Amino acid sequence: MKISDLGEFGLIGRIRRTYATGTARAPIGIGDDAAALAVSPGMTVLATTDMLLEGVHFDLATTELASLGWKAAAANLSDIAAMGGMPRFALVGLGIPRRFAAEDIAAFYRGFMQLGREHGLQLVGGDTCSSQGGLVISVTVLGEAARKAIVTRAGARPGDRIFVTGTLGDSGAGLEILRNAEWGMGNEKSAVKKLIERHQKPVPRVAWGRKIGLAGAASAMIDVSDGLSSDLGHICEESGVGAEIIADRVPLSKELRRTTGLRRPALEYALEGGEDYELLFTVPPRKAAALRALRIPAAEIGTVTKAGGMRIIDRAGKAKRLAPAGYDHFRAGAGRGPS
Amino acid sequence: MKISDLGEFGLIGRIRRTYATGTARAPIGIGDDAAALAVSPGMTVLATTDMLLEGVHFDLATTELASLGWKAAAANLSDIAAMGGMPRFALVGLGIPRRFAAEDIAAFYRGFMQLGREHGLQLVGGDTCSSQGGLVISVTVLGEAARKAIVTRAGARPGDRIFVTGTLGDSGAGLEILRNAEWGMGNEKSAVKKLIERHQKPVPRVAWGRKIGLAGAASAMIDVSDGLSSDLGHICEESGVGAEIIADRVPLSKELRRTTGLRRPALEYALEGGEDYELLFTVPPRKAAALRALRIPAAEIGTVTKAGGMRIIDRAGKAKRLAPAGYDHFRAGAGRGPS
Repeated sequence: MKISDLGEFGLIGRIRRTYATGTARAPIGIGDDAAALAVSPGMTVLATTDMLLEGVHFDLATTELASLGWKAAAANLSDIAAMGGMPRFALVGLGIPRRFAAEDIAAFYRGFMQLGREHGLQLVGGDTCSSQGGLVISVTVLGEAARKAIVTRAGARPGDRIFVTGTLGDSGAGLEILRNAEWGMGNEKSAVKKLIERHQKPVPRVAWGRKIGLAGAASAMIDVSDGLSSDLGHICEESGVGAEIIADRVPLSKELRRTTGLRRPALEYALEGGEDYELLFTVPPRKAAALRALRIPAAEIGTVTKAGGMRIIDRAGKAKRLAPAGYDHFRAGAGRGPS
Repeated sequence: MKISDLGEFGLIGRIRRTYATGTARAPIGIGDDAAALAVSPGMTVLATTDMLLEGVHFDLATTELASLGWKAAAANLSDIAAMGGMPRFALVGLGIPRRFAAEDIAAFYRGFMQLGREHGLQLVGGDTCSSQGGLVISVTVLGEAARKAIVTRAGARPGDRIFVTGTLGDSGAGLEILRNAEWGMGNEKSAVKKLIERHQKPVPRVAWGRKIGLAGAASAMIDVSDGLSSDLGHICEESGVGAEIIADRVPLSKELRRTTGLRRPALEYALEGGEDYELLFTVPPRKAAALRALRIPAAEIGTVTKAGGMRIIDRAGKAKRLAPAGYDHFRAGAGRGPS
């Protein structure tokens, strides 16, 4: 159906009927001037927002709208996870090009809420307008956490160990295969599929982040959205420390290690690829046992040092400088291209 | 200075240094994965978001960036006001075209926070990226209110009186004069200036909305952002009622009444112009004294009726149907053009 046949308020009405809230937690949801939201007594509100622009963050030639909805939810859920919080509410702003059909928008929300519901996210508001350029997506997610369970980027101290959950680099490699199908040829289909899936349907580590926060196990935490080198750089900058990581310890999936014919070595996708949405965190030595008790699949990859930049130690034991190399929106040629 | 010389994180650093928070109310502000925000005990959180796209919502040929920042704040503050709430926190997403200089972005934030600070708004987060199209703005404002002070669109009942604060139509007339300078010619300079100012620097009625909410004086409330006919239509739809308004009672400023040579009669700017950011609300007869005691400059313009649409009564006493005629983003030719 054409969106022009539905009209702005018809479109909002459809979204509202499908995802309407009106629960004890969100007594007023979609359809008023603002949503009214209940925060649990004594809890601190967490708020994060992400903007995704067609042609900058995504290419609709290689991305389905349901997958885009999923990813828009994942990026924000991951930010709440990286604070140690519980996601609660989402507001979604969409600027919609005239070429879109109502079904396209429905697919976006379906993907968004497919992931969102897994994490208890309620859609409580937003804004819907026409766009003269490409598709514009702006998502705000609100969560909550006890003040003392919140983990910032600023608490890392020299001597803390550096950990990362899961494996890194799959998403960046998956994106390159999507863009250049020939790079995936000659590889196991299941491995290629896994890399692409990790790019299209990343899993935010909400339960792990919450466990880490509640246990007070981490001194600093961030999600890996820009690539290990950039995101570790953020922790170093906010904490006023340096870091040394051991190249061989950076966790790479067997699928990534097995895939041949990619443009860059596997490690570079981990360092610079981004969009893995794993959690990168630092653990004081006295908290090592507390972390182990959580049984979170996380690898120790290095140590926090005094201020003085980041270094990476290769297999031969040689150290070299590690520069933040993720994407910078305003610097052409810095790090990877946007995805 | 070129934004490409600053880089993404340099730009964010500048915004952060200028507007950094880290107060008891916002223990974690700009610069982490999410902001951490304290809500007063027992309060309900209000959340609203607005998207503004260049070429759809604004034209940089007739709008300065500081004015645009002000308006982006005003639209969201007005939504919180219309719920009877207190604004607290803002998250600002910007998609920035390459042609922009760092000073342009600074001007936007200056205007945004000039109004924001008047209302106690703290800038606590956002997202900054490059745009391949025009400027993209997405603002989320969080506020708070006691649950029983919150006024929705859904509580109007037949017999309630309809009130509106201030005067309507100035903003819509001001926009037309900005677009077609000759329409303002031959009029008092001060009157024309006032109309333009009401378009460029609208004043959200935060204190009035809060007083109305705290006094429990209104059964329903909305801000006039799309024009009286559309916004009254929203109250009618959400409340399941109709409405009858008296044309002569719709408050028009002396500046609008005096201005000649406009394309449409003054009343039409009030009914269809939008962006006035006045408060439109309904008052049960038994609450009339409570409203008067608040001493808010509000005019009684009509009565809530049983379901069956909206009507407007002209000077001769003749009723005609009043159709919502504000802007619909997906229906070409419906109502006024976007502003």
